[in-house]
Amino acid sequence: MSRYVFYFEEGSKDDRDKLGGKGAGLAEMSRIGLPVPPGFTITTEACIAYQAAHDFPDGLLEETFEHLAGLEQRVGKVLGDPKDPLLVSVRSGAPISMPGMMDTVLNLGLNRETAEGLGRLTGNRRFALDSFRRFIQMFGNVVLHMDMDRFEAVLDAVKADQGVTEDQRLDEHALMAVIDRYLTVVREETGADFPEDPHRQLELAIKAVFDSWNNPRAEVYRRINKIPDTLGTAVNVQMMAFGNMGETSGTGVLFTRDPNTGEPRLYGEFLTNAQGEDVVAGIRTPRPIEELAQALPSTYQEIVETCRLLEKHYGDVQDIEFTVEREHLFLLQTRSAKRTARAAVKIAVDFVAEGILTREEAIRRQDPEQVRRLLYRQIDPAARVDEIARGLPASPGAAAGRVVFDADEAEALGGAGEAVILVRPETTPDDIHGLVAAQGVLTSRGGMTSHAAIVARGMGKPAVTGCDMVRIDVAHNLFVAANRTVHAGEIITIDGATGRVIAGEVPTVEPNLFPEFETLLTWADEIRTLGVEANADTPEDAARAREFGAKGVGLCRTEHMFMGSDRLPVVQEMILADTIESRKRALDRLLPMQEADFYGILGAMDGLPVTIRLLDPPLHEFLPDVEDVSAEIRQAEAEGREDDAARLEQVRRRANALHEFNPMLGFRGVRLGVVYPEIYAMQARAIFQAEARLLKEGRDPHVEVMIPLVGVAPELARMRELVREVNEAAARVAGIALPYKIGTMIEVPRAALVAGEIAETAEFFSFGTNDLTQTTFGYSRDDAESKFLPTYLADKVLAENPFVTLDRGGVGRLIRLAVSEGRAVRPDLRVGICGEHGGDPASIQFCHESGLDYVSCSPYRVPIARLAAAQARLASS
Amino acid sequence: MSRYVFYFEEGSKDDRDKLGGKGAGLAEMSRIGLPVPPGFTITTEACIAYQAAHDFPDGLLEETFEHLAGLEQRVGKVLGDPKDPLLVSVRSGAPISMPGMMDTVLNLGLNRETAEGLGRLTGNRRFALDSFRRFIQMFGNVVLHMDMDRFEAVLDAVKADQGVTEDQRLDEHALMAVIDRYLTVVREETGADFPEDPHRQLELAIKAVFDSWNNPRAEVYRRINKIPDTLGTAVNVQMMAFGNMGETSGTGVLFTRDPNTGEPRLYGEFLTNAQGEDVVAGIRTPRPIEELAQALPSTYQEIVETCRLLEKHYGDVQDIEFTVEREHLFLLQTRSAKRTARAAVKIAVDFVAEGILTREEAIRRQDPEQVRRLLYRQIDPAARVDEIARGLPASPGAAAGRVVFDADEAEALGGAGEAVILVRPETTPDDIHGLVAAQGVLTSRGGMTSHAAIVARGMGKPAVTGCDMVRIDVAHNLFVAANRTVHAGEIITIDGATGRVIAGEVPTVEPNLFPEFETLLTWADEIRTLGVEANADTPEDAARAREFGAKGVGLCRTEHMFMGSDRLPVVQEMILADTIESRKRALDRLLPMQEADFYGILGAMDGLPVTIRLLDPPLHEFLPDVEDVSAEIRQAEAEGREDDAARLEQVRRRANALHEFNPMLGFRGVRLGVVYPEIYAMQARAIFQAEARLLKEGRDPHVEVMIPLVGVAPELARMRELVREVNEAAARVAGIALPYKIGTMIEVPRAALVAGEIAETAEFFSFGTNDLTQTTFGYSRDDAESKFLPTYLADKVLAENPFVTLDRGGVGRLIRLAVSEGRAVRPDLRVGICGEHGGDPASIQFCHESGLDYVSCSPYRVPIARLAAAQARLASS
Repeated sequence: MSRYVFYFEEGSKDDRDKLGGKGAGLAEMSRIGLPVPPGFTITTEACIAYQAAHDFPDGLLEETFEHLAGLEQRVGKVLGDPKDPLLVSVRSGAPISMPGMMDTVLNLGLNRETAEGLGRLTGNRRFALDSFRRFIQMFGNVVLHMDMDRFEAVLDAVKADQGVTEDQRLDEHALMAVIDRYLTVVREETGADFPEDPHRQLELAIKAVFDSWNNPRAEVYRRINKIPDTLGTAVNVQMMAFGNMGETSGTGVLFTRDPNTGEPRLYGEFLTNAQGEDVVAGIRTPRPIEELAQALPSTYQEIVETCRLLEKHYGDVQDIEFTVEREHLFLLQTRSAKRTARAAVKIAVDFVAEGILTREEAIRRQDPEQVRRLLYRQIDPAARVDEIARGLPASPGAAAGRVVFDADEAEALGGAGEAVILVRPETTPDDIHGLVAAQGVLTSRGGMTSHAAIVARGMGKPAVTGCDMVRIDVAHNLFVAANRTVHAGEIITIDGATGRVIAGEVPTVEPNLFPEFETLLTWADEIRTLGVEANADTPEDAARAREFGAKGVGLCRTEHMFMGSDRLPVVQEMILADTIESRKRALDRLLPMQEADFYGILGAMDGLPVTIRLLDPPLHEFLPDVEDVSAEIRQAEAEGREDDAARLEQVRRRANALHEFNPMLGFRGVRLGVVYPEIYAMQARAIFQAEARLLKEGRDPHVEVMIPLVGVAPELARMRELVREVNEAAARVAGIALPYKIGTMIEVPRAALVAGEIAETAEFFSFGTNDLTQTTFGYSRDDAESKFLPTYLADKVLAENPFVTLDRGGVGRLIRLAVSEGRAVRPDLRVGICGEHGGDPASIQFCHESGLDYVSCSPYRVPIARLAAAQARLASS
Repeated sequence: MSRYVFYFEEGSKDDRDKLGGKGAGLAEMSRIGLPVPPGFTITTEACIAYQAAHDFPDGLLEETFEHLAGLEQRVGKVLGDPKDPLLVSVRSGAPISMPGMMDTVLNLGLNRETAEGLGRLTGNRRFALDSFRRFIQMFGNVVLHMDMDRFEAVLDAVKADQGVTEDQRLDEHALMAVIDRYLTVVREETGADFPEDPHRQLELAIKAVFDSWNNPRAEVYRRINKIPDTLGTAVNVQMMAFGNMGETSGTGVLFTRDPNTGEPRLYGEFLTNAQGEDVVAGIRTPRPIEELAQALPSTYQEIVETCRLLEKHYGDVQDIEFTVEREHLFLLQTRSAKRTARAAVKIAVDFVAEGILTREEAIRRQDPEQVRRLLYRQIDPAARVDEIARGLPASPGAAAGRVVFDADEAEALGGAGEAVILVRPETTPDDIHGLVAAQGVLTSRGGMTSHAAIVARGMGKPAVTGCDMVRIDVAHNLFVAANRTVHAGEIITIDGATGRVIAGEVPTVEPNLFPEFETLLTWADEIRTLGVEANADTPEDAARAREFGAKGVGLCRTEHMFMGSDRLPVVQEMILADTIESRKRALDRLLPMQEADFYGILGAMDGLPVTIRLLDPPLHEFLPDVEDVSAEIRQAEAEGREDDAARLEQVRRRANALHEFNPMLGFRGVRLGVVYPEIYAMQARAIFQAEARLLKEGRDPHVEVMIPLVGVAPELARMRELVREVNEAAARVAGIALPYKIGTMIEVPRAALVAGEIAETAEFFSFGTNDLTQTTFGYSRDDAESKFLPTYLADKVLAENPFVTLDRGGVGRLIRLAVSEGRAVRPDLRVGICGEHGGDPASIQFCHESGLDYVSCSPYRVPIARLAAAQARLASS
């Protein structure tokens, strides 16, 4: 016959399945000699047997009472002994935590006699009577399934009799009356006397805890959290300890280190002559834990040593509940302490210094998503916020400013030093100067890859997009959100990490790379094998990325350079050109600007590779909106400005001709390069001229030219030829060789499927996982995230948003296939990813497993990527 | 030492590489005993050796003259013999035909003496002198590289002397003068006398033909046509035959059967006492070939027998050139005859009856693209057309009618029996009644999958779309094309097979399935293993498809049913519904209409499977254009119709909310089913109610429910559950079981990549190759075909338009992967394709090779698919 009952000392933290989570924790603490109130655990197997038979399995009761006797012997108290009664708690504890779902009975063992004994023992008869009153109520509800209302009615009646309104004001006499009437209610309701026999109480309480495994709320919780019904719960029977036995008793909670800063000092509070619920109730003000050193010096010393032991044993900061009963310390609970991101990092680094953790363990411990918050200005977690809407978290960070509905006004106010938030239905290239001037942007339309989102992320500014809860009325200079009207000039705060829109200005917290964080990342760098580069479009971004530890630019998007207010008119002229000659003239004017761009970025990344992607978006993205142009034409005509009208008509015609039904799948990327080779030729020339300048200055530029959106091998072959010709011409002019590599983005499924052919020409592959996800799933991200993805995620049709965490089954399969077939053709093929997944820990894990050389992500994500890459290495080894 | 020279009799048609195409043809005819003027061929190897050494290889000249001697002996004439001179032609002939690119010398062997001899022999001195004059000119140009202008100047001068304007008017005396002055010109220009020695002439002519392999136009031709430079050309030296030796001589061309109808009779014409060039020059009117039976009965009989022999030998109808020299028949050339599609079919079937071909050979011979033309009304190939523009060939067939710019007017005029062509910038669901009433449609925007194109193909009406050469001015009721203005009411003809827009009415030819065609298709059915089904959305389409031999409906699109003018308002009401209840009310009204649709189609395909795809397009496709609604709102406001304005405002808001950036990748297909399950539930209910009615009537419906656009397995699992519930409810109401199958379209790459998971739930896969091509390449068809695909095809970046012929490397790889992994999970998984590729012969070949069960294509493509499927089987076996 198997055993169903174990003393705490008999188990350990590894016995979770059998003893449940709580039981295993109590066992572990007991096993390592911590002062835990003694007790025993009835196993989950007993529960399973009980469920099957609808009754206690043979021998269970006998085994329980044998262990009770052992407990009584050990603590020198006896259940039901009026002189020095043993009281116990009876608690559920499943293998997987189901907080609050199942039942608990405290103070079991009380009856009229033991209550009086407890009163004598504590010198506090009122407390003892109140405990008995509460025990009847709890037992009545949990074990006897009585309605709480019956008890409440009694309590209210007695309070009315006494002329008081609060429970605490009831005196001993009144409490005796409550107890009498409670016991009458129990008899009336259940047809039997309240069980005064503590052994009978225990038997019934255990049964009730077993039964609570199948109460409706526990069943729903298990269904939602996919916890098997067959696990069962364990039952923990544990001696009650009393912190309210005078001034040498007490109770408290503490963190073994400061959870906000990570400083190595106890952090918590205590009350003498009190029980846990007194601390929670807030009637008396608890005292800082340091003061316990004066109040109970030897106990304080014991706590300090216990904390050191706990940290060492668990290898983590602990959050502890304790009770002191007549200078005797009892730990009621210990668990890993919640802490701020900053504290988590400092603690881990300190633990390594203290020899508690290895570097690997310190790395493994970090939650990269939590670490991420260190890198953006955040809303002060302590601040009260008045949230008025929530949109997509398009670009992290928090910012406050005056609401402005117009880019020109944003520029004017921003130029005058005013903090502004640009609020638009959506943004276009025409709004760029407004975005530059604003602290952040809020749009009601467009998704995570809308213009506003991309530009804001590129600039490292907060953005909330696709916030369709706000209705923007540009004509009246106001927006409406949840029946609140916000006018231009009012202040709002946006939180781009959560998508929150908040009325008024909210305090924010600055990010920085503090010393412990840098130490941790250095360790990560030693561990990881996956490279980390950054997506950067400007010298400033490149410099920031380098500060954050990026070893190169994995993606430099040239189109954002085309959107600067000095370039856009020239770009538009180039697009409107009727002949190749006039297009070349416009391109000639763009050439020096592009050269300056590349000179800056290559310089900032001196000695490290910079992968420059040639122009990618469809040309119509650089033209103004057709409807806006139409309005301008009408106005020009009305005002008799015929030349203007004619010029605008040309713009409108070209914009119409370039209109696309599905721009994402349209005339962009290498398709532009094939049809208008002069555009790519200009960009290549700018790159090589910048390279030549740097080389002549003794610098060390590493140029990689990336052709976007290749789907058939001849596309890349043609572009490679074009780039080679431009390079040779530039080298002839410069009089020196201008080395470079050429490769492609793999961002449509076909490219992955013919990767072997493409690798004949490509020296590197960079997986553009945003577009590859869009095309592999057939999802337009902008449309999907605002239309059906929320339902898909809520209904678990998709486990994860594939734009956040890389889809292994589809997109991942294509990536693995392309890596393997590409390397078969070209063994030294360099492969990486440069989509937003490059900064997502789960996706980084995949990249490591798939043998990629590097990930490239936004500069602010670089530290997370370094950490996640190290974790991936540790997880795989 | 290898031989360089072969008599015609020594080779055969298999010696193309060595003897060139012409040499192999002459050899073959000689070998089987046909009357070919005798001669010999100098091999391509000799040419290659000549090119390498820049001189004749050792022994070549000797070998050539030996063969010349043999030829002289055989024909009893001697080169250079004034009494009976042998004249020869010296012609190039490469292994791959390069028509007109290289040089030829005729009448070689003439000089002053032999010309006089020829004159005596033919009794026509003028002809002999003129031949000599022409020979000098041709030899001077081709062999001596002289400028033709020098000869022309002489000729003009002599004509002026004689006071005549035409060459033919020059008499013998004048010709003698021309010859004298020609010879003087040769001496002046080349510094040497014209070579009067025929052996020297031959040597020089052979060298010249060899040299012509590397003339600039031949080199360009080879580069364009990717013909290797290393092949070289052969040289054919052949006795000249003369059809102008009196009334028992003659010349002619004929087809061995009527190339228009395929009737088994000779079809051609002849002239007595004439040479080939006289027939071409058109000076004398040739006589029908039948009349040769009277003129030269025995020769005629010989021709008839020769034709029979040729057809039998080549297994094909031949196009022949012949010369009769004194009742002696010579074949100068035979080649496969060009013929109409109809004739090709009749001939093949007749050949089988005559034992010339097997059924398999007859099938193999057909060009499916040519056969396709039999199935559409075509523009009469003989008609003169006034083409004014060319757009995309969006839906084949030809139609003429009055230009109408408005759907309502089209309906009015069409209802009155007038033939009209609807001309619109693009069409929307609002134009459906106009499309129904029109003979065809022309749009200036939108591609092969635009609304107009899809609807027209569904209706089997001609459409030309994306014709951006025409500028449509709806406001002024006119369009402009190539500086021609066409007003409403004028007649145009459109040719949807070529994309031509033609002014005026052009005669057209009716299609039909004539008996020989049906016979051929029956043979194809016996051979093929690949099934052929049809895409059909209406009972009429289904019936037509069945007539054409479809064995089921592989794709029934339910959205076109939503666009009928009686349904659209209800569909819009459903879309505009604010609550699920009001949406269900609208769906309840659609239910009986959908049930009637399915009843009709299932009935028309009684006994055969009908695969019904549930709603696929994004809902905004059913709403009117936002700009149109805005205009209507303005008007309603101006007229004080406030209720109308409010209602329209609701439409506009919903249309705006449903707006998508990339509708192709948006909120459509199963995504609608997951978010609005009530829509799919209504469609499933309509299907099963129709099935129940048919079963109770003793019919035999085979229902297959197809869920579109599945990308993750849980999507299909949910829809399968939904359909199962609806089916069970319908079966309970009907009181009988309602069997069905459920499956999915594989039309995004991810579905193919996780086909194994999807096959757990799917009973069939249908590859939607249109969308699969779009997503695999990342091409939006509408945008690609109007923007960059033309350049890609012209520049050979793509060998084929992947929307026409299935891309094997990318899309095909996904299909093969999905078939193999799907069948691994479910061995009886039925797989087919239902994109437009289902009607493309090359794609059908791929489907056969990949083990698909069937292809489904538009009804008019069914016969081609049957034929192509048989050809695929024959090609693989």
